[in-house]
Amino acid sequence: MAETTARKRRRGARAPVQQSAPPFVTRNIGPLNILSEEGLCLIEENADRILQDTGMEFHDDPEILQIFRDAGCDVQDTRVRFESGFCRKTIQATAPKEFMQHARNPEKSVKMGGNATVLCPSWGPPFVHDLDKGRRYATYDDFETLVKLHQTIPWLHHSGGVVCEPVDLPANKRHLDMLYAHIRYSDRPFMGAFIGAERAGHAIDMARIVFGEEYVANNPVLYCVSNTNAPLVMDSHMSGALKTYARAGQPVATAPWVLAGAMSPCTVAGTMAQVLAEALACLTLAQLVNPGAPVLMGSFASTMSMQSGAPTFGTPEAGQMVLAAGQLARRLGVPLHTVGTLSASKIPDAQSQQEATWGLMMSMFAGANLINHATGWLEGGLVTGFEKTMIDADLCGKLGRFFEGIDLSENAQAMDAIAQTGPGQHFLGSDHTQANFMTALFRPETPDNNSFEQWQAAGSLDTAQRANALWKSHLEAYEDPGLDPAIDKALQDYITRRKAEAPDQEYF
Amino acid sequence: MAETTARKRRRGARAPVQQSAPPFVTRNIGPLNILSEEGLCLIEENADRILQDTGMEFHDDPEILQIFRDAGCDVQDTRVRFESGFCRKTIQATAPKEFMQHARNPEKSVKMGGNATVLCPSWGPPFVHDLDKGRRYATYDDFETLVKLHQTIPWLHHSGGVVCEPVDLPANKRHLDMLYAHIRYSDRPFMGAFIGAERAGHAIDMARIVFGEEYVANNPVLYCVSNTNAPLVMDSHMSGALKTYARAGQPVATAPWVLAGAMSPCTVAGTMAQVLAEALACLTLAQLVNPGAPVLMGSFASTMSMQSGAPTFGTPEAGQMVLAAGQLARRLGVPLHTVGTLSASKIPDAQSQQEATWGLMMSMFAGANLINHATGWLEGGLVTGFEKTMIDADLCGKLGRFFEGIDLSENAQAMDAIAQTGPGQHFLGSDHTQANFMTALFRPETPDNNSFEQWQAAGSLDTAQRANALWKSHLEAYEDPGLDPAIDKALQDYITRRKAEAPDQEYF
Repeated sequence: MAETTARKRRRGARAPVQQSAPPFVTRNIGPLNILSEEGLCLIEENADRILQDTGMEFHDDPEILQIFRDAGCDVQDTRVRFESGFCRKTIQATAPKEFMQHARNPEKSVKMGGNATVLCPSWGPPFVHDLDKGRRYATYDDFETLVKLHQTIPWLHHSGGVVCEPVDLPANKRHLDMLYAHIRYSDRPFMGAFIGAERAGHAIDMARIVFGEEYVANNPVLYCVSNTNAPLVMDSHMSGALKTYARAGQPVATAPWVLAGAMSPCTVAGTMAQVLAEALACLTLAQLVNPGAPVLMGSFASTMSMQSGAPTFGTPEAGQMVLAAGQLARRLGVPLHTVGTLSASKIPDAQSQQEATWGLMMSMFAGANLINHATGWLEGGLVTGFEKTMIDADLCGKLGRFFEGIDLSENAQAMDAIAQTGPGQHFLGSDHTQANFMTALFRPETPDNNSFEQWQAAGSLDTAQRANALWKSHLEAYEDPGLDPAIDKALQDYITRRKAEAPDQEYF
Repeated sequence: MAETTARKRRRGARAPVQQSAPPFVTRNIGPLNILSEEGLCLIEENADRILQDTGMEFHDDPEILQIFRDAGCDVQDTRVRFESGFCRKTIQATAPKEFMQHARNPEKSVKMGGNATVLCPSWGPPFVHDLDKGRRYATYDDFETLVKLHQTIPWLHHSGGVVCEPVDLPANKRHLDMLYAHIRYSDRPFMGAFIGAERAGHAIDMARIVFGEEYVANNPVLYCVSNTNAPLVMDSHMSGALKTYARAGQPVATAPWVLAGAMSPCTVAGTMAQVLAEALACLTLAQLVNPGAPVLMGSFASTMSMQSGAPTFGTPEAGQMVLAAGQLARRLGVPLHTVGTLSASKIPDAQSQQEATWGLMMSMFAGANLINHATGWLEGGLVTGFEKTMIDADLCGKLGRFFEGIDLSENAQAMDAIAQTGPGQHFLGSDHTQANFMTALFRPETPDNNSFEQWQAAGSLDTAQRANALWKSHLEAYEDPGLDPAIDKALQDYITRRKAEAPDQEYF
C-alpha cells in the first residue's frame, strides 16, 4: 500500500482533491467595461448601417426569407436588409433577459444571464491529444471518456456538446450517440445537435424521453450554438437548427465566428460592428419564429496572423473584442455566449496557457454568461487535449473562487489573529489559521509548488506530465450518476429506430 | 543564405520583430474595483486599529524611534503605535500623487502614478535557468546578459534592480557592479541598491556622476524597493535605505511581502488590513524624514499552500488582494507598486504561464503603476529564467497593446471594407486590409500559430524551445546605447575606490 502510494507520487499521480462548487459561477466582481457610451453608440449605429445597407444573406432556406418579408424587411434573392433599429426593437420586445437551462439532476441546473457564468468544455475538435498516444482522430470511445472526465471536474457546469467529433461513427448518425453519452454519463445540462432541423428534432425527442413532453414544452433543457458563416451569411444547416430549437422554446446562441482580417475587418471596431449585425439578424429570426424564445448573443471573435494567415488566439484584440461584446449584449438585454481557453498551440505547453488564461480571464471579466471551450482546446480548435483539460480546469476553479469576491466577515477580517500573533511572528500555528486552513485558500491540482529538490526527486515532471496522471486518477474516481433503466431503454430504442431510417454516410 | 534561413527556421530562430513601444503603458481601460466603499472603509479602519493597538516594530534603528517620538507617536522599546488616522493624514499632506523617474535617455523616462504602468524585469533571484545549461547559481556574466536582454524587449520600461543575484561577486560589493551594468548597458531607468544606508548612498553617488549633482537633487532618477519583514517589522537594512533615498528625494516603494497563512492571516481581508497597516507606517516614515518625498504603496501579497506550507502564486486570493491594493492606494493618493508574472514552477511550462498570466493581468487590471517581476520569475523568485523572460515579454507586449483601448477612428470602423467585401466574401484582399496589415494586429514572438504539419516539420518545438532561440537572437540584435567615456571612467574610478575601502565579504 505504501509502495503504491510512493509509486503514484513518483509518476505525479494524486488523489483528486475534493472541493465542492456551486452549479454555476455567480460573479461578484466586474464586469469590466472597455467602451464609453459614445463608443457603444458608434458600434451600434454601424451595426445598424451594415444591416440596412449591406444586409445579411440566408442561404437555402426560403421559409426564412418569407418570415423576414412578412415582418416588413427588404428581401432580394437571399439578401435581407433591415431598417435601422428594427432588429434591436424586435429582440428587446420579447427576448428574456435571463432563464434557466435545466439538468436532469435539478441541483445542476444552470442560470443564463445576469451575473451568472456557466463554463462548458471544448466543442468541435475532430482530434484528441494526450501524452500517451499523441494526436489522433477522435473516436466515440474518446467522446465517452471526455464526458466522464468533464463530469469529475467540479469547476465545469455543463456537459457541452461535441466535446470531440467521434469520426469513427457515421457522420449523419453520430449526433444520436453523442446525445446519449451526455444523458447517460453526465447529470449536467448538455447541448443539442446543431446541424440541421432534423437532427435538432432528434435532440428534442430525446430530451422529451428524459424530461417528459410537457416539461420540455415549458422549460429550457437543451442549448444550441448557431454559427454564421461570417461575413453576413447564415446557411440552412444552422438556420434549420435555430428555427427548430426556437420553436421548441429551447435556447439558441448565435455565435458569429470571425477571425479579424479574414472573416471581418482587421480592426476591433469594424469586427464588433459586424459581429453585432450578424447577432442582431439571427436573434431577430429567433424572436420572429417564436416571440419570447430564450436566446444568447454570441461572440467568438479572434484574430488572424497578418503575416501567415494563421488563426491566432489570446491576442490583445481578442481581449478587447470580448469586453466590447459583453457591453453590447448587456445593452441589448440578452445573455452573452462566448469562448474560453483558446490556443493555437499544438501541445499543453507555455503558449497554450498564456493564451488560455488570457482568453478565459477576458471572457469572465467581460461578464459572459456561457463560456464555451472553457477547457481542453488546442491547435485552434482542431484538438481536445486530455492534459490541457485538467490544466484549464484549474483555471476554471480559480476563476470561480476569485469571482466570489472578498469575504468581509468577522472571521475573514482576522483582527484577533493579527493581535494574537504580533510583530515578527508567524501565523502558521495561530488559532485562526488552525480553524480555517481546510477552506481558506483554493487548491488547484496541476501546479507543483514544492522546492526544486523535492520536484527533482519526484521526477522533474512538467505540468503536462502531472496532468497526465491526474486525468487518469479523475477517471478512476468517476462516479456514474445512474439513469432510470426505463428511460435508458427508451433512449436506446429511439436511437435504434432513427439509425435504421437511413444508410450510414461519411459526410454531413 | 537561403540555407542559413532554413536552418534557423528549423531550430525555431526568428529575427526579432521590430515593433516600437511608448516608454510606459498608458491604461485606457479599468481599473477594476473589487471592494465596495463599505468594504474599503472596513479594511482602512482595521489597518488603523492594527497600527493603534498592535503597532509596528522598527529594529536596530534608534533614529527612527526618535523620529516617530518627535511626531507624537507612542514608542515603547522598538514598538511604535500610531493614533488612528495619523499615518493617512501625514502621507496625504505631502506625498505626491504622481512623479517621473528619469532615465539617462530622456525618451525613456517613466511616469509613476495615474493611469501609467511601468513594467520591470525580475528582481532578486540567486539562480538563473535556461534550456542549455539548466538551473545554476547566477553570475555577474548572467547579470550583464540579462540587462542587455531586457534592453532589447520593447515592452519592458525599466532596467530593474537585482535582475539576478551575481553570487560570484563579494556580497558586500556586488551592488556597485550591478549599478554599473544598468547604467552602462541600458539607457532606461533603474533601481538603486536596497540594502542599508551605505549602499543606498553609493547608488546616489553613482547617479550624481551620470546625471549631475543638481539634477539628482531635483529629480527622481533612482527607485528603491523597501520590504518589511511581515508581520509588522522593518529592520535597519531596509529602513536605512528607505531614509537615505527619501532624504535624497528618490522614490521609495514599500512592499510588504506576505504569503497569506504564514506572514499574514490566511484570509484576503485580514491580509490586506495588515499590508495597508505596514505600508502606512513605512510611507509615514518617508514623509516625516522628507515631506514630499516620492513614494509608492507596495503590495506583494500571495498565498501559502495550507497543505505543505509552500509559497503559491497565481491564486484566486492573490488576484483579489492586488485588486484591493489598487483601490487602497488610489484612496491613499499614492502610486501602487506591485508584482507580475510570479510562478512556483521550476521550468517555463504550462503552470508557469497560467500563474504568470494570471498575476500580470490582475496587476494591470488593478491599475498598478509599477509592476516588478513582469518577466522571468520562476520557482517562487529563486530563479530568473531566460526562456521565461521571452515568453513573459510577449504577455507584457500584449497587455501594453490591450490597454491602449479600442481605436474608434474612421479607419478602424472599417465601414467601407464591410460594404466593399459583402456577405460570404473574405477580407484578405480588401483595400482596408492591404492598407492596415502591417500595424493592425499585435505580433507576439513566442507562439507557434502554424498548422500541426508545419509545426511538426519545424521540429515539434514547444514554447520554451522556441524562446531559447529567441533570447539568443535578441542578444545578437542588442544595440549598445553607448555611454559618455568620461562618465564611464568616473563611474569605474568611483567603484574602484569604494571596493578598496573594505575587504570582500561573502555575506550581506
